[in-house]
Amino acid sequence: MSHEPSQPEQGPLSLVCAAGRVAWIGQGGPPEQAGGQRLDVAGRCVIPGFVDSHTHLVFAGDRLGEFTARLAGRPYEAGGIATTVAATRAAARPTLENTVRGLAAEALDGGTTTLEIKSGYGLTVDHERRLLEVAATVEDAELTFLGAHVVPAEFAADPDGYVALVCGSMMEACAPLAAWCDVFCERGAFDAEQSRAVLEAGRRRGLGLRVHANQLGHGPGVQLGVELGAAAVDHCTFLDDDDVTALAASSTVATLLPTVELSTDSRPAPARRLLDAGVDVALASDCNPGSSYTTSMALVIALACQRYRLTPAEAVRAATLGGARALGRDDVGHLGLGAAADLVVLDAPDPGYLAYRPGLAQVYAVVRRGRVVRRPSARVPAS
Amino acid sequence: MSHEPSQPEQGPLSLVCAAGRVAWIGQGGPPEQAGGQRLDVAGRCVIPGFVDSHTHLVFAGDRLGEFTARLAGRPYEAGGIATTVAATRAAARPTLENTVRGLAAEALDGGTTTLEIKSGYGLTVDHERRLLEVAATVEDAELTFLGAHVVPAEFAADPDGYVALVCGSMMEACAPLAAWCDVFCERGAFDAEQSRAVLEAGRRRGLGLRVHANQLGHGPGVQLGVELGAAAVDHCTFLDDDDVTALAASSTVATLLPTVELSTDSRPAPARRLLDAGVDVALASDCNPGSSYTTSMALVIALACQRYRLTPAEAVRAATLGGARALGRDDVGHLGLGAAADLVVLDAPDPGYLAYRPGLAQVYAVVRRGRVVRRPSARVPAS
Repeated sequence: MSHEPSQPEQGPLSLVCAAGRVAWIGQGGPPEQAGGQRLDVAGRCVIPGFVDSHTHLVFAGDRLGEFTARLAGRPYEAGGIATTVAATRAAARPTLENTVRGLAAEALDGGTTTLEIKSGYGLTVDHERRLLEVAATVEDAELTFLGAHVVPAEFAADPDGYVALVCGSMMEACAPLAAWCDVFCERGAFDAEQSRAVLEAGRRRGLGLRVHANQLGHGPGVQLGVELGAAAVDHCTFLDDDDVTALAASSTVATLLPTVELSTDSRPAPARRLLDAGVDVALASDCNPGSSYTTSMALVIALACQRYRLTPAEAVRAATLGGARALGRDDVGHLGLGAAADLVVLDAPDPGYLAYRPGLAQVYAVVRRGRVVRRPSARVPAS
Repeated sequence: MSHEPSQPEQGPLSLVCAAGRVAWIGQGGPPEQAGGQRLDVAGRCVIPGFVDSHTHLVFAGDRLGEFTARLAGRPYEAGGIATTVAATRAAARPTLENTVRGLAAEALDGGTTTLEIKSGYGLTVDHERRLLEVAATVEDAELTFLGAHVVPAEFAADPDGYVALVCGSMMEACAPLAAWCDVFCERGAFDAEQSRAVLEAGRRRGLGLRVHANQLGHGPGVQLGVELGAAAVDHCTFLDDDDVTALAASSTVATLLPTVELSTDSRPAPARRLLDAGVDVALASDCNPGSSYTTSMALVIALACQRYRLTPAEAVRAATLGGARALGRDDVGHLGLGAAADLVVLDAPDPGYLAYRPGLAQVYAVVRRGRVVRRPSARVPAS
């Protein structure tokens, strides 16, 4: 659609990419260039590419039935993950690769230029390793080992035995493929002691730490993550004062997942309290077939504004720079000199449109490492 | 993205369009055809095109500032409409035509094949007529005269004088261009007596009736609409038992607008109560720059499922057949023999995906009057 472009007062802003990085940015037209591709965005708004720091993209099957039952009143529980584990174990590798490729392409369509991808639907040594191998087919993804997603059925009578497996041979097989170790510290998944064991085993293998924490009720996950120096604690729907204080005194990022709260009919995370306390906040999609089957960071931002009362500027920052901090990355999530030239040209005059016009991607073009990887498609009838 | 197609048990279903209508539908492959275009949807789900029975697409300017202030806590009031009235009056006709064309194209991208469009940002005889002329440039739109949107500033001291203008020369100028007459019956807009005068004047001119009713609080709009035989009463956020009983005993459709409730931080309309009482329910976008700046019927459906607890089947029905009933149309909103061949091929195996995967259009192709007007675009990097 057409918008009246907002005219910057000091002439157009230009951004020059070279070798995949932001090489120059300034007003009044770029310096002389020997060549290269030009993209005239005609007054549209340019923001850093989204950094989606929490996804579960490698799986098979869907859980539409569970979703529909939830609409009819059945509460969300961590146990539904078992359905996806069964389907994922049974799936051929090309099926998994097609799904992850399709979802990563869909995310890029929507402006996500950096993706984190977790394992966690295999839950055996071989299956977890296979999922990380499949995830590694996505260019430049940040890979997370989540063997401690839930206790699989075959270990129902011996959860500590499963934790020992995760910390032992599963970690040994998976750590070389991943940058991060994660654990679902929640009722129905892993308690504080088990979670600590997993995270400490990950740390011994050189992995950075992340925690699924305080999603379904108040729990020990946030405090544990802060204590162990996790890069991020994710969900944070149920926090008490001590959690907020601990986060504010730490460098751990609180990653909020508003599409999960929508889908599971949950209360909103206390985002304003976190921001007001000085906590670093990230927004992510948690794309997974159970509790948030979407890659849309635009919707994540819109919901963060509506449900958390973030300003659009705060929400866009959390979905870009916040995600980058949650992944310990200083090269993405912003457009400073030397940063990765990852950017989204919005089909809108202001980033606030991501919240103001919900349900629409509003992506005019996507640039990744200086290359235009998505561009507007003409609306051509096929006749 | 790729999905495993769900295999129908009795072979593929085929639908034949001829002369813009559904000419044949059945299993086991279509009958022999002399020629024509084929579209193999490969196991994807086909639904009727969306019928968006409530939009305000003809306007100029935006209200991002008001939207952002609302996020910060300022409540929504009908008075914000005046901002758009000023911008719209000042806009050149080609600007308005470009905007309405862009939004209608965006709606078609998202699968909306029938659109209602209201005037209401002119509020003088000439400006209201001009808006209907601009709206008429959208092919096959259902046009609604909404001179009684709010009382314009120049009539602030004489609202009844404005009502007399609407019922008199404005109605005379606008009725020939419209099929419908609407009124915003709400505190801050028009009271019951004023609304009745407008609707009765519209009826005398042969217009069908619609009412903006019970949006910001409980009011007389629903009862008035039912009494006067309105095709639809729209919003219905605040209903009492008598309203539900009156609707159930009438043929008036209750049109619900969940994206408005999201944007204005409102309670959800009592959709389940309406459905359980046997009321015909429609879902619409209310696309307008103040309280719901989106054309996405997919988001409307997703929110109706999450916030109203409609099943996906109920929500899709309300967004198709419900909208058709709200517009008194029996040729759209369904795919029975002889119906308009307006359909959406979803990039999904089940219509439930519209709720299950929020924020994504999931449109594979759009067919309007038997013609493929949108088709999947290949993802081609521009390099």
